Amino acid sequence: MSDVKAYVKRVAALVEQSLDRVMEKESAYPQSIHGVMRYSVFAGGKRIRPALMMAAFEACGGRFGDEKVLLAGAAFEMLHTFSLIHDDLPCMDDDDFRRGKPTAHRAFGEATAVLGGDALCIFAFECLSRTGRIDIIEETAKALGTRGMIGGQVVDVESEGRAVDRATVDFIHTNKTAAFIRAAVRCGVLFAGAPVSAVDRLTSYGNAIGLAFQIVDDILDEEGTTEQLGKDAGSDREKGKATYPAVVGMEESKRCAEHLIEQAHGDIAFLADKGRMLGELADYIRTRIN
Amino acid sequence: MSDVKAYVKRVAALVEQSLDRVMEKESAYPQSIHGVMRYSVFAGGKRIRPALMMAAFEACGGRFGDEKVLLAGAAFEMLHTFSLIHDDLPCMDDDDFRRGKPTAHRAFGEATAVLGGDALCIFAFECLSRTGRIDIIEETAKALGTRGMIGGQVVDVESEGRAVDRATVDFIHTNKTAAFIRAAVRCGVLFAGAPVSAVDRLTSYGNAIGLAFQIVDDILDEEGTTEQLGKDAGSDREKGKATYPAVVGMEESKRCAEHLIEQAHGDIAFLADKGRMLGELADYIRTRIN
Repeated sequence: MSDVKAYVKRVAALVEQSLDRVMEKESAYPQSIHGVMRYSVFAGGKRIRPALMMAAFEACGGRFGDEKVLLAGAAFEMLHTFSLIHDDLPCMDDDDFRRGKPTAHRAFGEATAVLGGDALCIFAFECLSRTGRIDIIEETAKALGTRGMIGGQVVDVESEGRAVDRATVDFIHTNKTAAFIRAAVRCGVLFAGAPVSAVDRLTSYGNAIGLAFQIVDDILDEEGTTEQLGKDAGSDREKGKATYPAVVGMEESKRCAEHLIEQAHGDIAFLADKGRMLGELADYIRTRIN
Repeated sequence: MSDVKAYVKRVAALVEQSLDRVMEKESAYPQSIHGVMRYSVFAGGKRIRPALMMAAFEACGGRFGDEKVLLAGAAFEMLHTFSLIHDDLPCMDDDDFRRGKPTAHRAFGEATAVLGGDALCIFAFECLSRTGRIDIIEETAKALGTRGMIGGQVVDVESEGRAVDRATVDFIHTNKTAAFIRAAVRCGVLFAGAPVSAVDRLTSYGNAIGLAFQIVDDILDEEGTTEQLGKDAGSDREKGKATYPAVVGMEESKRCAEHLIEQAHGDIAFLADKGRMLGELADYIRTRIN
């Protein structure tokens, strides 16, 4: 196993321990809400955001496995899951499966899915408050709001089935996906107490890999198999989603992703060897298309 | 106009200024999400939670009109609105009108309503982070989560059309409604930096008036007119909602509300004259049934 895969797995194991420790058990009343929260959070996923947060933290002088960073990483996974549950709802993307399992509303009903997403969002902020870091809370809320993830999701839903231009798909991807990945990186940097110049460069790195991540996702939706994806391949095209391949073509999409990964490497050059894992994580995002 | 009505209006005017200042304009891209947020937040409402927060803050030595308390009060109104938007959704209470206006999903569509609620919740935490008070954020998140508002809402939805006992309706009302009202009072106390003994007594006060508030709401749904309520009178009964009148009868419901208001007065007796407005606010909640 490569270094980077082993690193992602190590962080994932620690973050899952943290999630298991802080979240209520399924048996806790009211069971349905605690059930849907655990079902959705533990449905799989690589925990790439906490891995990026920890790697940025270490690159700026932090110690691997720091408890506050892991708790914030757990909160990011809850927030990511919250967004997936609501995205999958019948009134949004109307998806029946996610990672090969029935989506939350298919398994628990729509009301419980809406409330389960809400509860994960709220509990994530409770966990972030336990880190004692108000700057982390502000950073996270900004990345998720109408100037970040929600703003991108709104335009994504509204663009479905319409011809969109490159500026629109850039807006969607930058806000819906990249903003939150960038925030994961920035939180790692903030926890480490790095100087502003480092924050700026790693913000640029986070933005580049976040955008690359979504473009690669778009490519995989076209080229992957249903088995690889855990959901129907080609479902973006079927729904008329605004994707990079749809707007600029497959070859140009791959070139863009490559270019963004190169840019990310440039952003972290100043870290020299301390930035090695961040560089490998950038390449890891790219290799998903190979 | 009575003192208490004037007080509630003064706080409401200041909180609405604060909301108008911090929230994006409807014209800001993406317009639909900023539109649904403002439409819902400015749909009316007495702003009773910020009034309670300010009154508790003043009772414990704070100065009327404090900017941080107003910002937290604005955040509480956003959070309250978030809960109403999601409660009204077709998969939950399926309400078409609220305060005489079409509900968010009727006016903007279901996807925008779900995301508008999400965005209000997230932006509220951003505003709370700007108060610089981590204890306020933790307090708020706990009051909203599965051990508070969401927990109560889940049991409320699941109890619809079923025969429930008094313990269940107590659980629903204590969590769905009282927890967040209690948190508004507690945040006022925390902002003022009051000692633990004051926090404990005002917690009891907040719980009592919060529970009374919901019982009075149940009573009004039975006895009020559609015009008074801004929604269909008797809609709780029609939906088979777990309410106090349904479970213990109308007379006992009124006795319980009276008893809780008396208890609230006892809780704030230690404040003597400094607790006058909190006492009037408790009576104000009771007078809605007369």
